[in-house]
Amino acid sequence: MERDIEHYFDWAATSPADEDILKEALEKSLSFYANPSSQHSEGAKARKLLEDAREKAANVLGVKANNLFFTSGGTESNHIVLLSLLARPQQKGSIVISAIEHPAIREQAQAMKNCGWEVISVNPDKSGIVSAEAVKEKIRDDTALVCVMAVNNETGAIQPIYEIADAITEVSKGKRRPKFHVDCVQASGKIELDLTHRGIDSASFSAHKICGPRGIGLLYLANEVTPFMRGGGQEKGIRSGTENIFGAIAFSACLQRYWISKKNTEAQERLAKQKEYTKDFIEKLCGLKCCTIIPESRKLDEDKYSPWVLQASFANIPGQVMVRALDAKGFFISTGSACSASKQSRPILEAMNVNADLRQNAVRFSFGAHTTKKAIDELFSAVKEIAETFNK
Amino acid sequence: MERDIEHYFDWAATSPADEDILKEALEKSLSFYANPSSQHSEGAKARKLLEDAREKAANVLGVKANNLFFTSGGTESNHIVLLSLLARPQQKGSIVISAIEHPAIREQAQAMKNCGWEVISVNPDKSGIVSAEAVKEKIRDDTALVCVMAVNNETGAIQPIYEIADAITEVSKGKRRPKFHVDCVQASGKIELDLTHRGIDSASFSAHKICGPRGIGLLYLANEVTPFMRGGGQEKGIRSGTENIFGAIAFSACLQRYWISKKNTEAQERLAKQKEYTKDFIEKLCGLKCCTIIPESRKLDEDKYSPWVLQASFANIPGQVMVRALDAKGFFISTGSACSASKQSRPILEAMNVNADLRQNAVRFSFGAHTTKKAIDELFSAVKEIAETFNK
Repeated sequence: MERDIEHYFDWAATSPADEDILKEALEKSLSFYANPSSQHSEGAKARKLLEDAREKAANVLGVKANNLFFTSGGTESNHIVLLSLLARPQQKGSIVISAIEHPAIREQAQAMKNCGWEVISVNPDKSGIVSAEAVKEKIRDDTALVCVMAVNNETGAIQPIYEIADAITEVSKGKRRPKFHVDCVQASGKIELDLTHRGIDSASFSAHKICGPRGIGLLYLANEVTPFMRGGGQEKGIRSGTENIFGAIAFSACLQRYWISKKNTEAQERLAKQKEYTKDFIEKLCGLKCCTIIPESRKLDEDKYSPWVLQASFANIPGQVMVRALDAKGFFISTGSACSASKQSRPILEAMNVNADLRQNAVRFSFGAHTTKKAIDELFSAVKEIAETFNK
Repeated sequence: MERDIEHYFDWAATSPADEDILKEALEKSLSFYANPSSQHSEGAKARKLLEDAREKAANVLGVKANNLFFTSGGTESNHIVLLSLLARPQQKGSIVISAIEHPAIREQAQAMKNCGWEVISVNPDKSGIVSAEAVKEKIRDDTALVCVMAVNNETGAIQPIYEIADAITEVSKGKRRPKFHVDCVQASGKIELDLTHRGIDSASFSAHKICGPRGIGLLYLANEVTPFMRGGGQEKGIRSGTENIFGAIAFSACLQRYWISKKNTEAQERLAKQKEYTKDFIEKLCGLKCCTIIPESRKLDEDKYSPWVLQASFANIPGQVMVRALDAKGFFISTGSACSASKQSRPILEAMNVNADLRQNAVRFSFGAHTTKKAIDELFSAVKEIAETFNK
């Protein structure tokens, strides 16, 4: 079946998967069908495929294969890190998280309160960025874990994770350093990332955000943790459950295709092009009187935002109405995160002190590897038409 | 690529997936690529596929679609139930589990100790069966959860889950009834199951054990629980993470093909045939002086065991040696669970009081939908030849 992804602008929710990669991965996993933990030679063949996929992913990410663990997705990767606190002999302390984390961190941290953990939230500034200084101020002697995402999923704001890592190291000199976890789900394949920066202890990744299948993710651990979730002991005990060979092969192939690095000139070209497209789109949107870019300061400081995600608000048009109006014209966007779609609140925008009207009227445009300039121009025309209808 | 599954006898570890089902599911998920939680019409199309898959699975399982939640696999389904205890306002009490549970229950229950929970283990009798009486004796006023699997993954012993459910109800008359969770991973598609039996509160399922893909499972909840693991709130908050449409479609199709019920005559025929095959295989094995069926009583009471799993011990041949010797002849079996393959211990056999020699020499033969009589006969010849070489 032909699928129409040309006018799909909801890539931050999920990306249309790469057919060739998924089909090839499925063929391989069907042929090498055994359980990689089985001791017979069919098991060994499956194990080899899995380890090759891990090695490939590690090469792309610039880390050692030993430090990568396949999981069921970004949410689980985040959970493994947070829940590992429950395996500690001493069960009291605080977790410092940014107020703009994905619910897999934000809501999970709240759940940890029931087990005696305190949660300390760090607000972003008006531009949607959590400063290293703000994080540093919140760290206490009993802080066991700090979580700040690399790229925000609603505004595209790039967080200063390296400065934050440095600040954590500095503030905890002579004391036990809290672990620093970085949710890289919206950053991978979108901006350059250096996982080996000193002080980054763990990072989470999801395949379906970079044209891979659902149900597979990766967790990078600079040093192994004691897992709280246990079972068959797969992935060196970090993630139990029979290994998903199809997912692992497909994810590593997608990383190879989309991960942004010096070696991957195609990915770099795509990023450079998208920067142009988004800049142009923002300029055009600013030409509409009723449009406010969120945060407004973004126009002046485009380098601090991922060009793949853009939040904007249109006067007199509730976000959901804009989504539906564009949908009727064959364009697909969302208000905020699909993971919060069932809720009406906009916690990320609230944390940025965006006023209630702007919040209610906010929508997210998000782009991906197959987005074209022509399609964005068509999107703009449609947005303009709708905006003008509501603002005569 | 052609795959050779004829002499694969490790179905309890994983099953060779059904190519037609997986390929069709992949095509559909590629076409309906959007996030089912997205508010636009592409999201709605994906949502419909997901809900159709849930409805289909519910029809097959004889439960309401509302009570089924897609997860990343059997391990996670088990974890959701166990970890929901951590979301309770009052965090003290005991968990009663059988000593023969899969590590996703057994090891996870141990981890819960760190959060203040006590774990009470119920031993099986020598036949590998956990009696309702034995479970009843262990339940205390503070018991919040009881876990007993439906079919043991190493011996095939069918557990009396309905009698256990009745016993729990009876013993807690006038008191708060503990929840009863049944791990059905090795039972689904293998024996008949009635999930609607009063007193069964939850049940877990894994797709890759019945010819489906890895990375997808189901959790049946008679009544919703408060989840401890949180995130985007998908699956009504029970399992957060973007929904795996490919997995859901494929799993429900596999359930339709393999779930054993009155309606599914093909599945019933397969079961009846396998009963004959296994009976015959056991008889032949008993003809070898060096072979001991585990438990020995199985021969006399074949109805109490899944015909798809058989544990046996061969004098003077360590289990791992038998696995390798058969492997060299092109037959694939395992010692015990692939999920414990890295460990040398055999906790299930120990709990059954199987002596150390028999434990060390024990291997598991497991069968599946595509197993033929001819292949089992060839397996027997190979086993006999090896057994005789070591017992001249």
